[in-house]
Amino acid sequence: MRLLIVNPNTSTDITARIAATARRAASPDTEIEAVTVTWGVPYIVTRAEAAIAACATLEMLAAHAADCDAAVIAAFGDPGLDAARELLSVPVLGVAESAMLTASMLARRFSLVSFAAEFKPWYEDAVERLGLRSRLASIRCLQDGFGDITRIQEEKETALLTLCREAVELDGADIIILAGAPLAGLAERLAERVAVPILDCVAAATRQAEALAAFPPKPGGSRRPRGSASKPVLGVTPELRALFQAG
Amino acid sequence: MRLLIVNPNTSTDITARIAATARRAASPDTEIEAVTVTWGVPYIVTRAEAAIAACATLEMLAAHAADCDAAVIAAFGDPGLDAARELLSVPVLGVAESAMLTASMLARRFSLVSFAAEFKPWYEDAVERLGLRSRLASIRCLQDGFGDITRIQEEKETALLTLCREAVELDGADIIILAGAPLAGLAERLAERVAVPILDCVAAATRQAEALAAFPPKPGGSRRPRGSASKPVLGVTPELRALFQAG
Amino acid sequence: MRLLIVNPNTSTDITARIAATARRAASPDTEIEAVTVTWGVPYIVTRAEAAIAACATLEMLAAHAADCDAAVIAAFGDPGLDAARELLSVPVLGVAESAMLTASMLARRFSLVSFAAEFKPWYEDAVERLGLRSRLASIRCLQDGFGDITRIQEEKETALLTLCREAVELDGADIIILAGAPLAGLAERLAERVAVPILDCVAAATRQAEALAAFPPKPGGSRRPRGSASKPVLGVTPELRALFQAG
Amino acid sequence: MRLLIVNPNTSTDITARIAATARRAASPDTEIEAVTVTWGVPYIVTRAEAAIAACATLEMLAAHAADCDAAVIAAFGDPGLDAARELLSVPVLGVAESAMLTASMLARRFSLVSFAAEFKPWYEDAVERLGLRSRLASIRCLQDGFGDITRIQEEKETALLTLCREAVELDGADIIILAGAPLAGLAERLAERVAVPILDCVAAATRQAEALAAFPPKPGGSRRPRGSASKPVLGVTPELRALFQAG
Amino acid sequence: MRLLIVNPNTSTDITARIAATARRAASPDTEIEAVTVTWGVPYIVTRAEAAIAACATLEMLAAHAADCDAAVIAAFGDPGLDAARELLSVPVLGVAESAMLTASMLARRFSLVSFAAEFKPWYEDAVERLGLRSRLASIRCLQDGFGDITRIQEEKETALLTLCREAVELDGADIIILAGAPLAGLAERLAERVAVPILDCVAAATRQAEALAAFPPKPGGSRRPRGSASKPVLGVTPELRALFQAG
Amino acid sequence: MRLLIVNPNTSTDITARIAATARRAASPDTEIEAVTVTWGVPYIVTRAEAAIAACATLEMLAAHAADCDAAVIAAFGDPGLDAARELLSVPVLGVAESAMLTASMLARRFSLVSFAAEFKPWYEDAVERLGLRSRLASIRCLQDGFGDITRIQEEKETALLTLCREAVELDGADIIILAGAPLAGLAERLAERVAVPILDCVAAATRQAEALAAFPPKPGGSRRPRGSASKPVLGVTPELRALFQAG
Repeated sequence: MRLLIVNPNTSTDITARIAATARRAASPDTEIEAVTVTWGVPYIVTRAEAAIAACATLEMLAAHAADCDAAVIAAFGDPGLDAARELLSVPVLGVAESAMLTASMLARRFSLVSFAAEFKPWYEDAVERLGLRSRLASIRCLQDGFGDITRIQEEKETALLTLCREAVELDGADIIILAGAPLAGLAERLAERVAVPILDCVAAATRQAEALAAFPPKPGGSRRPRGSASKPVLGVTPELRALFQAG
Repeated sequence: MRLLIVNPNTSTDITARIAATARRAASPDTEIEAVTVTWGVPYIVTRAEAAIAACATLEMLAAHAADCDAAVIAAFGDPGLDAARELLSVPVLGVAESAMLTASMLARRFSLVSFAAEFKPWYEDAVERLGLRSRLASIRCLQDGFGDITRIQEEKETALLTLCREAVELDGADIIILAGAPLAGLAERLAERVAVPILDCVAAATRQAEALAAFPPKPGGSRRPRGSASKPVLGVTPELRALFQAG
Repeated sequence: MRLLIVNPNTSTDITARIAATARRAASPDTEIEAVTVTWGVPYIVTRAEAAIAACATLEMLAAHAADCDAAVIAAFGDPGLDAARELLSVPVLGVAESAMLTASMLARRFSLVSFAAEFKPWYEDAVERLGLRSRLASIRCLQDGFGDITRIQEEKETALLTLCREAVELDGADIIILAGAPLAGLAERLAERVAVPILDCVAAATRQAEALAAFPPKPGGSRRPRGSASKPVLGVTPELRALFQAG
Repeated sequence: MRLLIVNPNTSTDITARIAATARRAASPDTEIEAVTVTWGVPYIVTRAEAAIAACATLEMLAAHAADCDAAVIAAFGDPGLDAARELLSVPVLGVAESAMLTASMLARRFSLVSFAAEFKPWYEDAVERLGLRSRLASIRCLQDGFGDITRIQEEKETALLTLCREAVELDGADIIILAGAPLAGLAERLAERVAVPILDCVAAATRQAEALAAFPPKPGGSRRPRGSASKPVLGVTPELRALFQAG
Repeated sequence: MRLLIVNPNTSTDITARIAATARRAASPDTEIEAVTVTWGVPYIVTRAEAAIAACATLEMLAAHAADCDAAVIAAFGDPGLDAARELLSVPVLGVAESAMLTASMLARRFSLVSFAAEFKPWYEDAVERLGLRSRLASIRCLQDGFGDITRIQEEKETALLTLCREAVELDGADIIILAGAPLAGLAERLAERVAVPILDCVAAATRQAEALAAFPPKPGGSRRPRGSASKPVLGVTPELRALFQAG
Repeated sequence: MRLLIVNPNTSTDITARIAATARRAASPDTEIEAVTVTWGVPYIVTRAEAAIAACATLEMLAAHAADCDAAVIAAFGDPGLDAARELLSVPVLGVAESAMLTASMLARRFSLVSFAAEFKPWYEDAVERLGLRSRLASIRCLQDGFGDITRIQEEKETALLTLCREAVELDGADIIILAGAPLAGLAERLAERVAVPILDCVAAATRQAEALAAFPPKPGGSRRPRGSASKPVLGVTPELRALFQAG
């Protein structure tokens, strides 16, 4: 199968980490194409930034989804996920949703560990929308700033490891989710040093994409809402406009 | 006070209806400025369209919010509301949230009446996010297509009246919310013909904006997340970029 | 408009504070009439006291609501609110409900700060009934006794300020609600000293009353339950009996 | 044991039915004292009436609870229950809470059958507050008026039987609760004619009172909130004032 | 009445404690028969052990329920309770459900105190399933191992007392439930030393069984699902097979 | 990978259908071993039957899990799933959980279609426990009996197709889950005839098992509760006893 991964952040270095992590998690015959949005911010911390990223992500999906079997939106918070599911004819996954649902099948209580204090109320809402409030052990985030987002997992490895251990020992987590695409790949490095499994959100979404690719939406008979077929759509790329007007 | 209203749909005819309804609902000394997004669709029916509208709305808010005391996002579904609240230093309201919270203080059970079947699952989610599931009597929507969105309230007046009455008689609604900016102003015309109050979502948001304008966010001491201050923000208008980097 | 405010506590000194706060929050053309119940307790701390206050409040509303455009029940806990909404033909607001819904539109997480430890489980229930559990950052209350309830905001200003700051720094509150009519007016004095906005519950209810006065219940076609029309009502004031039997 | 039952309605004929039903349900050595409030309405249909009944009930409890081992508030809706629990040193039960919790242990889904359409939204709220929403099959109420409340169970027996059967056949109820003190005793007459058990709310509360009488609150070490000890309490009976000031 | 109590643990010493506690709680004319499962583990700590215990309990109920008026499953976690209710023609109670519902009528917030850290997430789920999440003050468990389960209440009395006091003083509990059949009888010994009532789960279930025995399921007209009537049931005792095929 | 599938029903014909469906859904290099419990009932309809099946399933898992990479419990209702996850060192999946979580990623609202009316309240509970209540469009079940469970999908194909279509047209389902191992394989036959995707629960669990096999529990550092290590475990197979005492 062919899997499209869109990085909703503008940082191509993080796209490279995402792609490498996805390739290690994927089955041998899964081909991965990782692309980066062309506008927005290098890493999303706020809902305002996520709103912009959602638009940019839809444009990238429109440009690249033509011959893929599934697509992943690779920023925790899953910007544009609901919208993309309406528009695309293949399964679309978000790394947050994939990681939390996967964790809920692997263990009883999960903790989210991430790199910015701003995430906490946002991710609490995300947990609640998935109906997983009773499965959440805690959300622990770095409280201080950091230098270079593309090197954050090396720069803050010790602090992130401490958060993982606190989630296990103080909060009762049975599994840890490293929440955030800039942390892609870190789970493998921390695995040996934490008492419970650590789930990489990009790896989880990659595996889930492989699982869901077997269940494509129905080509002609979809129930997807048909809003835009006869409406002008202004100010978006031609590919996205085409998707809207086909949808 | 000065109230900015952004129509997240591209239809200026609907903007005119919104503005007229807001002016009738507002206090005499409230000045209303109604603006229309410059990209997106003429009326939002899907979440994908709402994702686009959120971006376009943030740009319009950035361009016009400088000297207003409050802002209203005038499309049911409130595209970009969470994001706008992070960015603006004045209260921001959405017509859906305003109408539902107002209704919850005026009566026990409300029904939403709207013009497209696609809205139902979307609006159910909106009700749930406000914590008002137990206050919802029903959501009733027109099932058939319509001709001209800018004339829908005249074209479908009888059908919408029937939905209002069914909400009262079959679903036990104590108050009706006409859900959707294209219906702005219709509540006044239907009021005499329905046994319970009918709430206009634009009027509700206008009154709520006046109420909240007394409670501005703190200028210097905000807790708004500071994501973008030092980050490049690509591909948005200069005004929106400035807002991000100030935020 | 003419706004009736009922103090469900017997303390006229607190009524004076409530009235002064409401006048500062109100629009210039809003006329405020503040009245005090004639039986009950000087300040409500328990649900048993609130049950008594509900009755006394209904009587005062019945005596004074004749020519008002909206009414506010000015004790946190909103004694008699549901009942009053059934009986009166104008919007009725409670300071707790008004403050929490207003806060939910102004910010993401609110904390309640109040003056007696007994309030905590009661107010938790109130938050849950409004569907706002996920928006509550914390409830913080004075743990010790106090001298004179009518001077509590001066006597305990430092301790209350500390609670506000703890709510922000330890609990992540984005906005503080000073919960309790005896604290009316204190928000203005503390505003400069706390990093997030502080909402006065009396001010919030006053503004909400102005907003809702535009949406009166339907005079002849109400869905209000008609329990007592043909029933004898014993032991209440003639005005309240009349309201029951009209309802 | 000695069980005090307060009828929050002013109808002594209904008190007699309640007492007779309780006596049939009680153990042989349970002594029942049934008293009637002296003010309020002959039967409660609205929340406004329930607010009045709560006060009147507290007064009756204060006057008669001195030497009882448990007390029952015998109107569905349980007016004053939370308040009474704060004030009394013996277990206090409500017929609605008792019936619904009992039903939840006897069967999976219960339906409420009652005599006035106004009850439906009120009882839905009561179910939700007990956390039993997922156990509720339906609430079915008589839609038409009736003649004499004290004879309603005879007058409307056929219609009530039909509601019970509809709850079983159309709504999937596994057990029926006859909701309302005026229906006390009817369950026994209908039992043979309905396919699932019918629970009498007065009988359920009587049995629960016997169960709970073994677990009295702690005399000296209570956590009951101490609001009124040093406060004047105006306008209530001396017995109730004493209870407040002891509490 | 005759009350059957099944100990789902294989420890007959604990069965003896259960029986003695039940007899002290029961009415004089209640005859208690306490039996012990013949397979499984001496005390249940995990859900896997509870799954085994559920089967063994169903077999014991099938063997002994013939002439009882009610049955109690005497292990916190209530293994097999839903299943037993489908199969038996008398009320079946669990000690966890009985204790928590009883506590919810006696006080506002309860804490569970138990003897193994593993219980916490499991009991949180149990609380949530009963809809009592908002009534739970805390769950506090012994963190260390213990010697002999049959003597745990003597061995760990001081530590358990400390947990009870912490639940009151730190968590705001209004009532404590000693959660676990191995703690049967301990509540009586600790009662004097804790500021709030302590509820024995076996005593609560015994009293609830007496209450519910008045409301037997309907002999011929049950809505219990009819799964097995015509199906072979392999590998269970003849009595249990008979119950399945009658059910 | 090697996938163990346990049929908790005693019908080997249904095991054959399950195995065939799993093989079609699986990746080429997934080896499937399907086994059948040796006691219990040929098809589970009640919770009592599921309680028995849970035990029998644990025994089969203990006997066969030694060299598998993941295990699936193949009866809707997922008997023994929580218990198995505590005991096994590989991911364990249930067909109900897998199907519902997969559906929640593929579409907004799912309906369950199954073959016995008894399932409805049970499956409603299962949906609620997964936190997916707001995603459930409906549960539709055959109301009449059937002849041979092993041929039910052929015998009742038309009736089941009708239920699927009603779920789409009347209930607004965006995806259908055929709920029940006896329906394994039917989705493929109905796919062309229903307007929305139909999800086979066995296929969904197979794909999820492949996805989760990449994330094994931690061998030595598990947080799984350690109940039985030092306890005698009576009356189960030696393999299951070994698993308990290792756990």
